Amino acid sequence: MRHSVSDRLSQYATVARNLDVGAVALVPGPNFTRALNHSFMSHERPFLLVIPARGPAAALVPNLELRSWDLVGFDGAVFDWRDQDGYGTAFSGLMDHLGISSLAVEGQVMRVFVHHALKTAQPDLRIVDGETAISGLRMIKTPDDISAMRAAIEISERALARTLDAVRIGQTEKDIEQCLIQALFDEGAEDMAFHPIVAAGDNSARPHAHARAEYAVQPGDALLIDFGARKHGFAADITRTVFLRHASDEGRAVYDTVLRANLRGLNITRAGVTAHQIDDAVTGVLEASPYGDRIRTKTGHGLGRDVHEAPYIMRGNHMVLPAGTVYTNEPGLYDIGNFGVRIEDDVLVTEDGYITLTSFPKELTILPC
Amino acid sequence: MRHSVSDRLSQYATVARNLDVGAVALVPGPNFTRALNHSFMSHERPFLLVIPARGPAAALVPNLELRSWDLVGFDGAVFDWRDQDGYGTAFSGLMDHLGISSLAVEGQVMRVFVHHALKTAQPDLRIVDGETAISGLRMIKTPDDISAMRAAIEISERALARTLDAVRIGQTEKDIEQCLIQALFDEGAEDMAFHPIVAAGDNSARPHAHARAEYAVQPGDALLIDFGARKHGFAADITRTVFLRHASDEGRAVYDTVLRANLRGLNITRAGVTAHQIDDAVTGVLEASPYGDRIRTKTGHGLGRDVHEAPYIMRGNHMVLPAGTVYTNEPGLYDIGNFGVRIEDDVLVTEDGYITLTSFPKELTILPC
Repeated sequence: MRHSVSDRLSQYATVARNLDVGAVALVPGPNFTRALNHSFMSHERPFLLVIPARGPAAALVPNLELRSWDLVGFDGAVFDWRDQDGYGTAFSGLMDHLGISSLAVEGQVMRVFVHHALKTAQPDLRIVDGETAISGLRMIKTPDDISAMRAAIEISERALARTLDAVRIGQTEKDIEQCLIQALFDEGAEDMAFHPIVAAGDNSARPHAHARAEYAVQPGDALLIDFGARKHGFAADITRTVFLRHASDEGRAVYDTVLRANLRGLNITRAGVTAHQIDDAVTGVLEASPYGDRIRTKTGHGLGRDVHEAPYIMRGNHMVLPAGTVYTNEPGLYDIGNFGVRIEDDVLVTEDGYITLTSFPKELTILPC
Repeated sequence: MRHSVSDRLSQYATVARNLDVGAVALVPGPNFTRALNHSFMSHERPFLLVIPARGPAAALVPNLELRSWDLVGFDGAVFDWRDQDGYGTAFSGLMDHLGISSLAVEGQVMRVFVHHALKTAQPDLRIVDGETAISGLRMIKTPDDISAMRAAIEISERALARTLDAVRIGQTEKDIEQCLIQALFDEGAEDMAFHPIVAAGDNSARPHAHARAEYAVQPGDALLIDFGARKHGFAADITRTVFLRHASDEGRAVYDTVLRANLRGLNITRAGVTAHQIDDAVTGVLEASPYGDRIRTKTGHGLGRDVHEAPYIMRGNHMVLPAGTVYTNEPGLYDIGNFGVRIEDDVLVTEDGYITLTSFPKELTILPC
């Protein structure tokens, strides 16, 4: 086993000991990729990496993945299974081999059919949701992680600049979305971090809007674009809201409120602040405005291999943010039937304060288009 | 509630009665989208649509999605929750409202944290994996579904033609992948059905290979491309393997074997055949060749809103294929360290036989590049 993989696996063994369970199980997804330095697909086939509190790791691998699995340099026991035979025997073999009575899993990633296969192989197995502790290992970014995120963000910002330059009155939201996607890949994205949100006019008041093929953008519209590239396995997540040709007084006032909330969140960011404190500060600005009834979301979420990961920046989450955390600062105000504004930056927490990894201008922008 | 949504929901109520459970629960994903004619994101927030065996449906909706949820035209009870409050109360409210003792879920889609939230709200709730019956409703495609799949396939084939035209000796697998992705969106894809596989030389022997930035394609390489566009919510899934400048005698013989297996599968396809019979026929051709030890996968899988869905085309699956099923016929032979060949068509089962929705040439192709 290569040293780096071995080191990573030992971190999950520590998590198992801290959670007082026999082992940690990972399924394909961000933790799995981090642990093995390789990503795998899953679909309908169970695929499992189990790291015991003590002793060597073991894996359950679909037979057709063995040739890719060889690249990992894994020296633990492997229980493979073929489609035509099913995976029941492999699960029984794995659990017999492990001899554990409890297992921590990634509740946000593992699907119920794998949970059922584990319980079928060992009905008395106690399965606990170890998501917070397991994914928590990804919270403090390494210098390599930060470089990857910077690359993803640079690609995203170049794509956004090209897209905004190309916006014209009369284009549909779908047209603009298509332009953005093209620009992302043209600028070097290896994937989209998520399907972009491109929403204008009343649609911008839906935090997770879908671009409409039937709505042509009009003068005075707010145009909200929330998107990100993926590069080297890491995600960017950026939102900018601009106005087309002109902005109403209400639009300007709402924009100014959201921007002040965003800046307030930045200003209090430094290692040692809690997620609660950031959300409280940001949301406090929104609440103190005349638009408090337009709040729909928390301030943001952690960002890394996953678009949404710990820490969740919301009141009630008293997790202390250590240096190296990257979170999204994305206050918004959404007035149904009217318009919405969101401004989202990707923020690296440092000992002394913060670095905004996103650098796209966020002053009120009125596109001449 | 609009008529079509009401009709769809009643199908899930029937599934609940057939499974003898109190209700069916859907989470964001292909069944959820089909049921509601709208797609939603999920990430870290639970989002649930519950259709009881008898009586009106109910939903658990993240508060920030309510403005999008309004578009669905859903007239059942809605239990929403805000990030800062957590979702425990909403789950309790939902389960109290439903008054059921058992629930069928989508085992391949629902994640463990939702399962745990259900069990926390109602510890005695019996949760069964209803994946087969629930997703089985998507197996027979409607004319609209077929139109969407044809659109996705046409986009994919135009993109493949452009990509193969542009392949040159010395490009890396990543270069070719990037060209393919650009072409997909340029041709009108709304998304990629999955991250493409672009694998040359020895990498083509890995069924789920990743494109390498460090490998430049060489004369004599097999180049395997497995990819698909998504359009109108439906996926294409196509594989072609070509040779660069020349093909070895072994390459030609293996290609011929895989093509004969693919054609054999087509030839026996018609409504009433079982998944087992198709795989047995296809894999039988491979086994009867000198390359039987290079078999790594089953013949294929259903295709629709999901890239991998029922029916799984493999021995032991005695499910009868009805007219309207679309499956992938994708035999392959994989010689580790040497090369692999896969040929994949998307096949519509009809009363009298089949229609191959894919029409990209599959005769042995040697690119002059």
